[in-house]
Amino acid sequence: MPGDAEATKQRILEAAIAEFAARGSAGARIDRIAAAASANKQLIYAYFGSKQALFGAAIENQLERFHESVPFDPTRLADFAVDVYDFFAAHPELARLGGWHALEEEQREHPIPAIAEAWRERVRAIARAQRNGSVNAAIPAPELLLFVFAVARAYVVTTPEVSLAARGGNARRRKSVREAIQRLVG
Amino acid sequence: MPGDAEATKQRILEAAIAEFAARGSAGARIDRIAAAASANKQLIYAYFGSKQALFGAAIENQLERFHESVPFDPTRLADFAVDVYDFFAAHPELARLGGWHALEEEQREHPIPAIAEAWRERVRAIARAQRNGSVNAAIPAPELLLFVFAVARAYVVTTPEVSLAARGGNARRRKSVREAIQRLVG
Repeated sequence: MPGDAEATKQRILEAAIAEFAARGSAGARIDRIAAAASANKQLIYAYFGSKQALFGAAIENQLERFHESVPFDPTRLADFAVDVYDFFAAHPELARLGGWHALEEEQREHPIPAIAEAWRERVRAIARAQRNGSVNAAIPAPELLLFVFAVARAYVVTTPEVSLAARGGNARRRKSVREAIQRLVG
Repeated sequence: MPGDAEATKQRILEAAIAEFAARGSAGARIDRIAAAASANKQLIYAYFGSKQALFGAAIENQLERFHESVPFDPTRLADFAVDVYDFFAAHPELARLGGWHALEEEQREHPIPAIAEAWRERVRAIARAQRNGSVNAAIPAPELLLFVFAVARAYVVTTPEVSLAARGGNARRRKSVREAIQRLVG
């Protein structure tokens, strides 16, 4: 792809990430993405195929960024959880895209292979560490990973009432996330 | 309100709960709610005022049901978490309404007093129990309550990839929720 086309594709992807994170897939408008990316609508379909495929590309892009930023070591789950919290706090897009992906009907019919693969790999890594005794096995690996993400994202995607009532700021939240996960595997 | 009017209002509320839980507030259609409730659109606005007010009424109705079904005792948080898990598993509507409420832009501008009040009361109850030594104070009360809900809802509103990869069924999930919260307060 020539440089201009690549730059345009990148602009579309960035506009799509912002639009989908804000409004979900059903609420997103390709017109709005086109306007934000200074691209035309036909080009978006030519590059990405469909709105659903564009949503998939947006989430994969953010997932890749996440994987590059946040190292995963099953024997250091509390560190991982704090890193996840920090990443989501700085880049709420992935947590929000995941939120829509979990709620929207059409999303539920379109699992994203990159998410499934990352999930399986991490569950396997935790299960291995539990078998060789380096991670506490009281909570099975899939549930443990699920709870780590649930705790790490809890303050990032939360209802407005809880956000309004929240006190203590970032340092206390990080500390609480670390304490919680240390306890889960302690 | 005469009996017929009350019955109609109740049908509208039930249709609204189903529609909002499935599609969120932005995606819900008052026409669809009217058709499902065999009521007319004008009547919905007459009874509830606006789409946002109807969303608020739907969430308050489910929250009331939740409060009636699930007893809260700050010194028995693991039991509470399992009850929350059971309630959400049997009635995912409240967990899903809460999910939309946390994500949708318009929702974020309309906090719901009943949620804020229930939240404050529970945080205060946990904080009191922490001060008198009956609950471990390692995690501050608001974070602790937030994590309890995050863990209890984790398997109910989750991405399709995680649902597909899930094994072990209900008994293992309940046990994992209990184990996790026991560890948070242990």
